[in-house]
Amino acid sequence: MSELATELALIAAKRDENDELRAKRDEFVLDTTVYLDGNSLGALPKAVPGRLADVVAREWGELRIRSWDESGWWTAPERIGDRIAPLVGAAPGRIVVGDSTSVNVFKALVAAVRLAPDTRDEILVDATTFPTDGYIAESAARMTGRTLRAVEPGEVASAVGPRTAAVLVNHVDYRSGRLHDLPGITAAVHAAGALAVWDLCHSAGALPVGLDEHGVDFAVGCTYKYLNGGPGSPAYLYVRSEHQASFDSPLPGWNSHADPFGMTPGYAPADGALRGRVGTPDILSMLALEAALGVWDGVSIESVRAKSLALTDFFLECVAAYVPEGRVTSVTPAAHAERGSQVALRCSPELSASLEQGGTPNAGEVMRRLIARGVVGDFRRPDVLRFGFTPLYVGFADTERAARVLAEVLADVSG
Amino acid sequence: MSELATELALIAAKRDENDELRAKRDEFVLDTTVYLDGNSLGALPKAVPGRLADVVAREWGELRIRSWDESGWWTAPERIGDRIAPLVGAAPGRIVVGDSTSVNVFKALVAAVRLAPDTRDEILVDATTFPTDGYIAESAARMTGRTLRAVEPGEVASAVGPRTAAVLVNHVDYRSGRLHDLPGITAAVHAAGALAVWDLCHSAGALPVGLDEHGVDFAVGCTYKYLNGGPGSPAYLYVRSEHQASFDSPLPGWNSHADPFGMTPGYAPADGALRGRVGTPDILSMLALEAALGVWDGVSIESVRAKSLALTDFFLECVAAYVPEGRVTSVTPAAHAERGSQVALRCSPELSASLEQGGTPNAGEVMRRLIARGVVGDFRRPDVLRFGFTPLYVGFADTERAARVLAEVLADVSG
Repeated sequence: MSELATELALIAAKRDENDELRAKRDEFVLDTTVYLDGNSLGALPKAVPGRLADVVAREWGELRIRSWDESGWWTAPERIGDRIAPLVGAAPGRIVVGDSTSVNVFKALVAAVRLAPDTRDEILVDATTFPTDGYIAESAARMTGRTLRAVEPGEVASAVGPRTAAVLVNHVDYRSGRLHDLPGITAAVHAAGALAVWDLCHSAGALPVGLDEHGVDFAVGCTYKYLNGGPGSPAYLYVRSEHQASFDSPLPGWNSHADPFGMTPGYAPADGALRGRVGTPDILSMLALEAALGVWDGVSIESVRAKSLALTDFFLECVAAYVPEGRVTSVTPAAHAERGSQVALRCSPELSASLEQGGTPNAGEVMRRLIARGVVGDFRRPDVLRFGFTPLYVGFADTERAARVLAEVLADVSG
Repeated sequence: MSELATELALIAAKRDENDELRAKRDEFVLDTTVYLDGNSLGALPKAVPGRLADVVAREWGELRIRSWDESGWWTAPERIGDRIAPLVGAAPGRIVVGDSTSVNVFKALVAAVRLAPDTRDEILVDATTFPTDGYIAESAARMTGRTLRAVEPGEVASAVGPRTAAVLVNHVDYRSGRLHDLPGITAAVHAAGALAVWDLCHSAGALPVGLDEHGVDFAVGCTYKYLNGGPGSPAYLYVRSEHQASFDSPLPGWNSHADPFGMTPGYAPADGALRGRVGTPDILSMLALEAALGVWDGVSIESVRAKSLALTDFFLECVAAYVPEGRVTSVTPAAHAERGSQVALRCSPELSASLEQGGTPNAGEVMRRLIARGVVGDFRRPDVLRFGFTPLYVGFADTERAARVLAEVLADVSG
């Protein structure tokens, strides 16, 4: 190990020692891998396997149908919503869990548009959005007779106007890791008389969101990234208190009925956020999520944010120290106020060319080699390496190692 | 035991001995309860707990993000769709699993309407439908600018006409257990130039459906009843071969994109039924379902149907033998061609009055007492007792016992 590496490793060890979240790491199933892909799929919390085994063997296997009542299955969507609420700055009763993020984007955006007068004939969508939001927004626009216009999040304030019904923005850009100004953009949207819908997939569980405080109208998010709910675990929908009585869902399934077991042919919506429920909730995935959320006991999202920034800062420092200049460029903002909990590095065109000569066309090969050496991030076309930092289980030594192995891989591939 | 009971018990024992599906019972976790609520939540197949434990501990816990590829998570929706296909008479490539039944009703009905010209301005919905289909159909009508009209399934043939875009019918009535004429109604709908959408929740896994054979346009169903997928396990969507190229989903999430990892802002739909996918699939629930479907190995749906009819016939015989006339009335058709796999008994008004005098207002009390004595069915307001017969794990002795205990409970409550 070089002198530089020794020095950085010592710094890392000291920071890990002083890390107030360090004990949380023991609540996850981990191995010698440096897992920097929690922004795609969170690691397995140790509480999940035992709880899920009990749900299957006892609640389903023995109690069977009785569990809808006796095991609290029926109320899981709102109960788990209340468990997520403090992590995103929401009071109880405002979040309901269920369906995928895409389906919840549809509910939220259509509901937002329905609160606007017909003269507001336009929906604005984040031009840098994770694609599914854009596809679903297009459908929501088509089905509500609105046009859809894509604008950069930084331009929402100037683009929003009297024709805007609603605006859909990603809180953190999935590709670059850029954190958008939720309070400022929401205020600008409101000043124009429109409604703000936020996608929290890449922020919830990584940083404070403040949904109630900033008057966000609707929000959606997944639970399998920083909330560690498991592959494809159910998403959630937040409905601002002021909109709950007028929330008009495009998916009014029987689970959102005021009296679902009345089984009347006419629809009468339930009160509150549970109007966002649709069909029968997928209990196995949902209760795995509930068990996974136990890791948040005693954790403040502010301390998570502080550690997240310290980790991404340190990663950028280590990359700068280990990787010769020009080989990779961070596309993640340096300013803390603009950074989520990931670092995205773009591979230089020179590197791509060099890789091509070796028959390996792109940054995907760099990521494959990183993974083979026990550093797991992911690759987003065409040339971005993503490294997600989950403060509950990623440490500073992990971070130093990731940067060091990255430098080794880059040296290998570009000879 | 009375002479009558002894005789019926002997008949039951003989039929159980000759039951070619009898060994299947050993593939489920059962106890001394007579479980006649598999039409609400199927019993736990023994293969599920071990498989799910492996999915959690190894696929999620160890392989983590790599499992999307290496463990076949990404392709689960269509792979499991192909596993369900033969049970409902569909060729491979026509069914995709995911989301709830309600969400799939929305996809199917909107997609069906979009295949019709604007002059077809009406949707017909089964007046006896499970409520969620009606609520969602109302939303689909509103969002596609059509009007919704409720008609009895038996009247579809006369009601469908040149203004009809699509017709949504339940294959089996969830309350009465009546089986509707899928081939005849579908043909009548087609003769009028409209499209037929079927809800198979109460038929799939209990009787032959013949989706391809009868030219059904779209179909949806849940997997937690006769398919034993577990509480809230994902539903499925069938898209007729002829409609796959023009299938225009109202929920075009990124999972239905032709190149989902291209992550392009423009939507380009995938080919085939997987265009019915939306967001990230809930893998835990989905792979539990896949494991549960293993019980169908070597089972023909025709033999399931034969046993189902034998069981419901026998239950009706035993009820007639044990319960004094007039106490309960079957609302399930006697004709095999009109019967699903459940028997619904209406409690007589006299009984309700008698129960009221005792402070117990309705048939719900009869069901509570049945459950307390180890016979589990369910209760649907205002006065219906439902008994579902899952041929893979319900036997004739169970059936005789259920009728006998019912007679005892009814004798108790009406003094």
